[in-house]
Formats: sequence, structure tokens, C-alpha cells
Amino acid sequence: MTWWMTDETHDPVRTSWVDGANGHADFPIQNLPFGVFSPPAGDARIGVAIGDSILDLSALASQLPASEALRHRRLNALFALPTEQRRLLRHAISGMLSDRAIADRVIPHLHAAADCTLHLPARIGDYTDFYVGIHHANNIGRQFRPDNPLLPNYKYVPIGYHGRASSIQPSGVPVRRPLGQRKPPEADAPIFGPSTRLDYELELGVWIGSGNALGTPIPIGQAADHVAGFCLLNDWSARDVQAWEYQPLGPFLAKNFQSTISPWVVTAEAMAPFRLAQPPRPQGDPDPLLYLQDEADRQHGALALTLEVSILTAAMRVRGDAPVRLSQGPASNMYWTVQQIVAHHASNGCNLNPGDLLGTGTISAADRSGYGSLMELSAGGKEPVALPGGESRTFVADGDEIILRASASAAGFTSIGFGECRAMILPAQ
Amino acid sequence: MTWWMTDETHDPVRTSWVDGANGHADFPIQNLPFGVFSPPAGDARIGVAIGDSILDLSALASQLPASEALRHRRLNALFALPTEQRRLLRHAISGMLSDRAIADRVIPHLHAAADCTLHLPARIGDYTDFYVGIHHANNIGRQFRPDNPLLPNYKYVPIGYHGRASSIQPSGVPVRRPLGQRKPPEADAPIFGPSTRLDYELELGVWIGSGNALGTPIPIGQAADHVAGFCLLNDWSARDVQAWEYQPLGPFLAKNFQSTISPWVVTAEAMAPFRLAQPPRPQGDPDPLLYLQDEADRQHGALALTLEVSILTAAMRVRGDAPVRLSQGPASNMYWTVQQIVAHHASNGCNLNPGDLLGTGTISAADRSGYGSLMELSAGGKEPVALPGGESRTFVADGDEIILRASASAAGFTSIGFGECRAMILPAQ
Repeated sequence: MTWWMTDETHDPVRTSWVDGANGHADFPIQNLPFGVFSPPAGDARIGVAIGDSILDLSALASQLPASEALRHRRLNALFALPTEQRRLLRHAISGMLSDRAIADRVIPHLHAAADCTLHLPARIGDYTDFYVGIHHANNIGRQFRPDNPLLPNYKYVPIGYHGRASSIQPSGVPVRRPLGQRKPPEADAPIFGPSTRLDYELELGVWIGSGNALGTPIPIGQAADHVAGFCLLNDWSARDVQAWEYQPLGPFLAKNFQSTISPWVVTAEAMAPFRLAQPPRPQGDPDPLLYLQDEADRQHGALALTLEVSILTAAMRVRGDAPVRLSQGPASNMYWTVQQIVAHHASNGCNLNPGDLLGTGTISAADRSGYGSLMELSAGGKEPVALPGGESRTFVADGDEIILRASASAAGFTSIGFGECRAMILPAQ
Repeated sequence: MTWWMTDETHDPVRTSWVDGANGHADFPIQNLPFGVFSPPAGDARIGVAIGDSILDLSALASQLPASEALRHRRLNALFALPTEQRRLLRHAISGMLSDRAIADRVIPHLHAAADCTLHLPARIGDYTDFYVGIHHANNIGRQFRPDNPLLPNYKYVPIGYHGRASSIQPSGVPVRRPLGQRKPPEADAPIFGPSTRLDYELELGVWIGSGNALGTPIPIGQAADHVAGFCLLNDWSARDVQAWEYQPLGPFLAKNFQSTISPWVVTAEAMAPFRLAQPPRPQGDPDPLLYLQDEADRQHGALALTLEVSILTAAMRVRGDAPVRLSQGPASNMYWTVQQIVAHHASNGCNLNPGDLLGTGTISAADRSGYGSLMELSAGGKEPVALPGGESRTFVADGDEIILRASASAAGFTSIGFGECRAMILPAQ
């Protein structure tokens, strides 16, 4: 088995006996994402999402492979397992949830997801954010450096930087509008106060599985084996703080006040049917350097994922309106694949650990229907985005909720989704 | 008690009954730094350095305050304690090591430091590196941006960025020369291979003690209470990789392959006598914004520390030579104090945790006698630094050992030191 090959757990005719699982937009039996949840009045434990329910894997650990790792309160030990052991676990869970003969034994360990609290799935040792969305890099680059939007290194180096692990929170935890330094163009000196240009960024998150020893790079051909799964990531960004602070060492307080992730880890195994050949590089672009080239990555390295952003303002909430979509686009707008960013990250010997999180950077489409931030949609705040009911936004307002979603689909397979990555903005303190 | 006030543990007439402690350059009884060590054939545990010995605090935990925190294998729980509890512990240890009447009971728990292995003192959740050495910022800025060495934000924003926690290693662990992309000026495209411009950076490390909740800034007046102690930090840097990769998001693979710290945590309490008024800002520089202003910080915020770098090349080692000093300078060349970088870091609500590590950035003096990197000493590789025996260096060579040291001194007090921060360069794989 290799990372892009499918098996009977992906079979679209496989169904589950769990109510509401079959046809579920996010969590049919073909998905089986891992997470950490607390049932009502219970402690945090490892579970798997199935339809609108959560199966308590800790309670069933003795009947499953990798039982020791299932008894932890974080997924790090599960992530650290060899790919083959995670695959055996997936098969066992898929069998358990499809075999009606054993349903009576399993049902006591199912919880209604709506009654449970979801936590960060892993202890995040280090968090790294990349910049692989080439349309985003172009759009933002044009605003910060009109003459020079895409720097000369972009098509050679999968640009990345270290972010803050401590302030990553699961979907649902509100975000306090940060204070910070900003320098209005007309002012002689900066002022300190609440950010007035608070933005979201639509990103894919990548959970590292098994790590590498310090000093030992991960060859591109082995990079996929170090990926445990995926999530959504909202890299909240204070654009006014960012513009003033980011030179010469990169973004810092503009982004480290909070990041929001979707709590379910959609496994690399679940994503096997949703692998695509990399789109060809535009005419005239250089080939990747050899340490970033791999035939399997070229054939199967991209992801058949559609990403979208919605907003629910306070006024919409009062009216009882549904969230409104701001943009939608494909993850194939990544200039570098997940395998390439993993191999690049470890190419100097930097050690990755189970539970490390990588962000792809904002994934925008070439046109505004798929722009992944308000900075792009509002052209840097110059063109307000119209919303229903007469509202408009250049940046996010207090009380706004931003909701990221993702779904994977491929001909002949059952679509799966990531669940929500959602948070509301609270006023500055 | 406040952070700059001294007490009887700092009294220069206090002596220890431990052989070799009195007059020890680094670890007299006035220092008492914490660390994590393994005695021969023993497990990792918490200890304190005294002269050339280590006192096993885990074995004596039941006789000391904070006994629960002393039984861990890392200092995080000790760092998390309120300052007042850490102070009580210091008093108890100082008493134990000065009171000859109880020496017989304590001696069984002393180990010769030379026989022990020293480990990372804490689990580092997040590592942040600042850029407070204004002479370094000027020197490096001039090489990367000749027209624009110090950017307009420098005198308002304590510039910082997130670094890699996983690859921080204690003194003594060798450093593998990293591979990476670099673009020679004459080449059309970058090449991938061993760095040819590997450098050290002389920095002070700051260990975070008690943390702050997400969304709750740390006021500058309380910042000192969140600092547990200090160490030396060598922020190894591949200058060729850095020059090519660092725009627009900052250094990444140029620095995350390894960083080296001294293993002893010189506590904030031990540093109380070595506090100075901040040097006045140069004429014409702006005042710090209000959230970075504090009278106690102005009066006592700087550190009376002398920092130095030495080198021992392979040829010198063969000849049996001692290391040669490359530079020496005062820590007062920091444009921002430790309290200011802590308050700035949390000013947007970013949560700091016990065991987080902050680096100050390279601390250079105004002239080359105190330049904290080879990039500065060799003027970007153009002026080789002469060494004894006819050798010279523009950057570090395989087999070189770089040794950082620091000592604190003040009139009327016993000087204390940080011990070594040392590592050897291994050839690229």
C-alpha cells in the first residue's frame, strides 16, 4: 500500500449502521477522522466522527489495533505510529461501524456530537506556516510591494516561517481582537490600540505523523509517510500590525494572538482517493530543484479539495440568517505540494515531531470568487465587500463569525468533508 | 521583595562548605542555577550547580520548599511557581549549602559535574527570537540593505519572530552543517548543497516563568515577574541560505537546523544584584510607546553582564591550545530590555507559557571588539579573521568549536557566571 492507493475502506458501497452516517456531507464511513472530545461530564478522550456521532475509541481500545495509543488524551502517540499501523486501525474501525452484527456492542460508546466538546487533537510541538498559495502571494505581494509582488525566490523555495503553537485553538473558541502597533500613512509615529484591519486567512493544516531525527532530512519520496492528516486553519491576521512590524524578520504579533483549526484530523488514508496529478507549472517557470522532485508526488501529490469561507455577522445572527459564502476555490492552487513542504522543512536536518502542525498559507484562486482573505477581496480595504441586508466589510467586525469548510470529491468515490473551522470576533479589551 | 532587590543569599561573605565553590568563576553559592542532569548510570533529574559539583534536588525534595516541582524531570513546573515560592526555595538551598552543620547529610547527594550529563532544562513550548542588539541590527542591515540598514520600525517595535523549539539542544551536542538553497550572485538559479557561510550568533536566552492567559496582555510593570531566568544561546545561522530565503517572511531553514543553549538556568533572583539603569536612548530617538514604559524598568531593567565568544579549531585542539577569544562586550548593548520584550510579546494577548524561551538576538558592541557574529567580524566574508598558528576564518569551519560565556559583576557583590554554551561543527552529510 502506498499513500495514494485506495482499498475497501474507500468503497462507495460500504455503509454504516450508525443513524445519519450514510450520505453525511462530512463524516460518512469513508472518512473516519480522529479527534479528541469530552462527552457530557466526561474527560477528554480520543474518538472518531461518524455522521453526527462520535465513537469513543478509548472505551473500545482493547478491541482495536494500536490500543495503547488510543488510551491517551492527545493524538500524538497515534500520529507517531508507522503508517501501516494507522491503516490497520482504520480498517478495524471501518469494520466495526459497518458490521451490523456487532452494532449492539458498539452503540453504548457512541455520543451525539452536538453534546460533546471538541479539543485540540494533539499537543502541537512546533507550528510552521508556508506560503504556497501563489495567487495569494501575488495578491498580497502587490499590496505590500507594488513593483515586486512575487520575489525571485518564490518559484525555487517553498517559503515558510515559524508561527506560534501556544495560541492555536480549536473551532468554536472566540478570538479577542488584538491590540498592537500600527502606523497610519499620514502619521509620523505609530500608535498602539485595537487592530482596525483584522482579517482571516483560509488555509489547509497538515498534521505531522512520524518524525525525523535532528540532522536527518526526509527525502521527498518518503515525505507522504510523515503526514498523519489534514485540517482547516484560519490564520487570523491583523493587517495594520503586520504592515508595520513585518520587516525584516517576518510576521509576529500580527498573527500569533490566535489561530483556529478544525478539530477533526482527516487522515492521509482517508484522503487517498482524492489525490491528483500536480497541475503543470506555468510556461517559463523553473523546475523544482532535485530534492523537491518525485515522480509519485508529480502524479498524485495534489489534493482534490474544495475550500470555502463563509461569514455570519451579528446582524445576520439576529435575523436568523444562514452564513453567506465569501469565496470558494480548489486546493490545487498550491504552487508546492504537501510532500514538497515536508521535504523542504526537513532538508536542512530540522527535526519534525508527531503532532507538529504545518499550514499551507492562504489558498486563493486566480479570481475573486476564490480569494482566501478579506485583504484580497476588499483590495486592501479599498473596495468593501457587500453582504445581504445592506452590510459590507473591508475587514472583520466584532461579532462576526468566520466559517471555513472543505470537501474532497472524486469520480467514483463518496465525498468527505472536514467539518467546520469557526470562530467569532470579540471586541478588544 | 521586588525583582531588583538583594537579600542575604547575595551576601558576598556567605560561603559554601562544598569544595571549590568559594571563588568559583561561574557557580559560587551566590548563583545557584537550576538544571536537569543525569548522574552516571542514573535518570534525568533536577539539580543545582555549586562549584564543580551538582546537588541532586530531587533526592532532597522532601526537605525543601516546592518539593513537588523538584521531583519532575524538567523545570517547567518550577518555572510555573510564583516568584515568591522560587525565592523561598533559593533561600533553603543557600542555607543547605552554607550550613556546615548539615553537610554530612547533604554530601551523599552531591555529584561531580564532570561525571554528569546535562540536558535541556525545560520542555520548550515556543521559542521566540528578538533583535534587540542595535549594533548587530545596524551591522547586518548594512550588509543586506546598504541604503537602509535600520528600518523605520526598529526604534518603536521590539522586532521578534518565532523560531524552532524542536531543534534547540544543550551545550555539547555537535551541530551538523546544514544543506540548503543558496544563490551565488553570479548564478541564474539557486543551488542546493552544504552551507558555505555557517555562522554563530551570541545571544542571551530568557526563560519564561509563570505564563499569561490567551487574550490577557502582561503589563510592562509585571513583566519581570514572568521571567524565571537566563541562559546563553547560540543561534547558528547559515548566512547564504538566509540571504536567499528570508524575504518576505523572515529566516526559516537558515536558523532552524539547530540552536545551542547553556544548560544552567541562572535565575532572575540570582541576577538581582546585576541590574542597571537602562542606558539613555541616543539623542533624537523616540520614547518607547506607553505600553513599553515603566519606571522600575528604566532604573533597573538592564543587565550588568559581559558576554564573550571563543573559538577552538581542530588544529588548535591537536596542538593542545586553549580557545581564543573572538569578541567580548556588555549586554547593555540591548536597545530593549528583557521586560520590554516580554511585555511586547504578550501585548496582543499572545499567551506565554512556563518554559518558553526567548532569545534577545545577537548582542554586538559598537566596535569589532564586541561583534557577536562572524558575519560582522569578517564584514560579510570579505575580511578574514586571523587566528593563532596562521589560520583564519570568514565563517565557521568543520571541526570548529564555538564557546559562549557570560559573567555578571557589580561592585560589592560576588561575580557569577553562566557556564559554557559550546558546540562543534560536524561536516555536512
